[in-house]
Amino acid sequence: MVLKVVALCGSLRKNSYHHGLIKSAQQICQESLKGIQIELLKISELPFVNPDLEVDGTFPPAVEAFRQKVLSADSILFASPEYNYSVTPTLKNAVDWGSRPGNVWAGKPAAIVSTGGNFGGGRSHYHLRQIGVYVDLHFINKPECFVPAYSPPPKFDSEGNLIDAQSKEILQQILVSLEGFTLKLSGNV
Amino acid sequence: MVLKVVALCGSLRKNSYHHGLIKSAQQICQESLKGIQIELLKISELPFVNPDLEVDGTFPPAVEAFRQKVLSADSILFASPEYNYSVTPTLKNAVDWGSRPGNVWAGKPAAIVSTGGNFGGGRSHYHLRQIGVYVDLHFINKPECFVPAYSPPPKFDSEGNLIDAQSKEILQQILVSLEGFTLKLSGNV
Amino acid sequence: MVLKVVALCGSLRKNSYHHGLIKSAQQICQESLKGIQIELLKISELPFVNPDLEVDGTFPPAVEAFRQKVLSADSILFASPEYNYSVTPTLKNAVDWGSRPGNVWAGKPAAIVSTGGNFGGGRSHYHLRQIGVYVDLHFINKPECFVPAYSPPPKFDSEGNLIDAQSKEILQQILVSLEGFTLKLSGNV
Amino acid sequence: MVLKVVALCGSLRKNSYHHGLIKSAQQICQESLKGIQIELLKISELPFVNPDLEVDGTFPPAVEAFRQKVLSADSILFASPEYNYSVTPTLKNAVDWGSRPGNVWAGKPAAIVSTGGNFGGGRSHYHLRQIGVYVDLHFINKPECFVPAYSPPPKFDSEGNLIDAQSKEILQQILVSLEGFTLKLSGNV
Repeated sequence: MVLKVVALCGSLRKNSYHHGLIKSAQQICQESLKGIQIELLKISELPFVNPDLEVDGTFPPAVEAFRQKVLSADSILFASPEYNYSVTPTLKNAVDWGSRPGNVWAGKPAAIVSTGGNFGGGRSHYHLRQIGVYVDLHFINKPECFVPAYSPPPKFDSEGNLIDAQSKEILQQILVSLEGFTLKLSGNV
Repeated sequence: MVLKVVALCGSLRKNSYHHGLIKSAQQICQESLKGIQIELLKISELPFVNPDLEVDGTFPPAVEAFRQKVLSADSILFASPEYNYSVTPTLKNAVDWGSRPGNVWAGKPAAIVSTGGNFGGGRSHYHLRQIGVYVDLHFINKPECFVPAYSPPPKFDSEGNLIDAQSKEILQQILVSLEGFTLKLSGNV
Repeated sequence: MVLKVVALCGSLRKNSYHHGLIKSAQQICQESLKGIQIELLKISELPFVNPDLEVDGTFPPAVEAFRQKVLSADSILFASPEYNYSVTPTLKNAVDWGSRPGNVWAGKPAAIVSTGGNFGGGRSHYHLRQIGVYVDLHFINKPECFVPAYSPPPKFDSEGNLIDAQSKEILQQILVSLEGFTLKLSGNV
Repeated sequence: MVLKVVALCGSLRKNSYHHGLIKSAQQICQESLKGIQIELLKISELPFVNPDLEVDGTFPPAVEAFRQKVLSADSILFASPEYNYSVTPTLKNAVDWGSRPGNVWAGKPAAIVSTGGNFGGGRSHYHLRQIGVYVDLHFINKPECFVPAYSPPPKFDSEGNLIDAQSKEILQQILVSLEGFTLKLSGNV
């Protein structure tokens, strides 16, 4: 059995470091954690969340497609930049669309990775975890991943690819932890 | 001297209750607090925040116009709905655009009003206050305004207008408190 | 198999409503949820947490006894009053002693109940949940229990006993949810 | 006019780094910021907060003395360690005693300093700031002070004294910012 993980990237930037974290996680799965498959979901094309856009219980097509992808996933990987001490609007918007009835996040295990200066994106994690209480996500506790983007040695190359061995090791631990937690919560241990 | 307050509404819904809170605050100012003028800013047309959209230090026109409005204001009024235990993407997006260099929020006094079921939107306040630490807003502490949208007596009519006297009284107290705090912080007391 | 739950009460008051919530939970288990046993731990006699009190890796006797009780439990029930928008010092102190090496909370499922005016103690939950990330507790997400202590009908009698049927129903749902989550996380489903 | 600042240390440890931060702040005032005087309050002898200990509106003697000291201060300096992603029980306990009627914190300006591994104590700041909303403290926003205790060069000597020039510089900026904010809020600018 292969675990289906969907990944959301909270940054819209080209060469985003958070996109780099997801690409690196995908590569780790292809090389060493073959029981996990990670699909990056496109959330940049979702409109701003607005219940008025739901007509007769149907969602705009991009929203509907996004929701179906989440619904069919076993667990979720958030690459969550910290913008102004909280999550990005892009990421929150995707979570909000997913939470509309019926909530596609319900009961799913999840993990967060981030990078940045200062706390490495850390403040966004605790806001996202509080959001997760309501949308009913179960986050792994350990390890937490806050890649210090600007401390030596270099963590990313100029195209936003993760190039730091130690950070990759933490990413791998995150994935192993998420896999174990997902199996437990689904009764497959 | 008339205090210039700009208001941001975190909901995009037609007949939004949060829009109703701002309209009611505007009416209170016209009728009894003539030292305050509130202008509702349009934030629905801002694109999702993305530094790649800034070219040679210039912002997209809608962003630039929004930033100028904030910059010229004395203080800020946030109508902040709680979506999934946090702020809405629409509101966060406006805050994030304003924070881009040079941060237009810096040093301004602010207040939050909200409504909703359960905690009346309250959880969004504490996330917004943490965001405010970084963008350097100074929120009033008291009173806090959490209008219980679904408890009797009715709080809003079918067009989203606030019709509850007690809630209007709290709104008025918020405005008086914001005015006093703004004068203090600007050295005009 | 009977689930061993330990309960912590964050209030030191005689006739504390939070003690009342725990007593009611115990009664529910005796009457209808016989697969769960709840033991109230005494945390009022723990000294203020201070690593200097740990000599050669041993703890003061009251701390050691507390830690053993937690260690042998299957899951945790927190009755968590909100003092000044956060958890009480008494409750935090117990959590902190438990977290000293080796952390006795690690991996355990947990639930929170509270009561109070305003948000019914709600703000304490999200601080406690953030604390739980580090000490590695896994909280249930649903339902959440915020008993509105001062809204009619009366919720507690003069000795702090819970007397409200609807609140008891929510307590029961919390216990059922905690039981299910504990079994899942222990691989016993 | 000399500004009277009272300081609270959230750690009970002998040679506590947080005590070291306060001692360093006191020395900075003696040497270069002569308009500020900092008195360290003793909070280790306060009993656990419990309204049952208030008899006929009077507080235990240690509590009463503490409250009088806070009441007569112009502003507050918190040295706030992060224990398990939140504030320490010792610090919260002092804040809670101060908040009992009539709240001695009301309207006072405040600042937070901390040190530690990882985020340098940072997570405790945002919990303390939320607590401050209810007890009506006005925290400065900038700068924030998170001394990275375990990153080179050494920050403290073996007796817990701050020995790092850059950290002292940030402490000094905190004090200057707190002084300015206090003067503004008291209408003395």
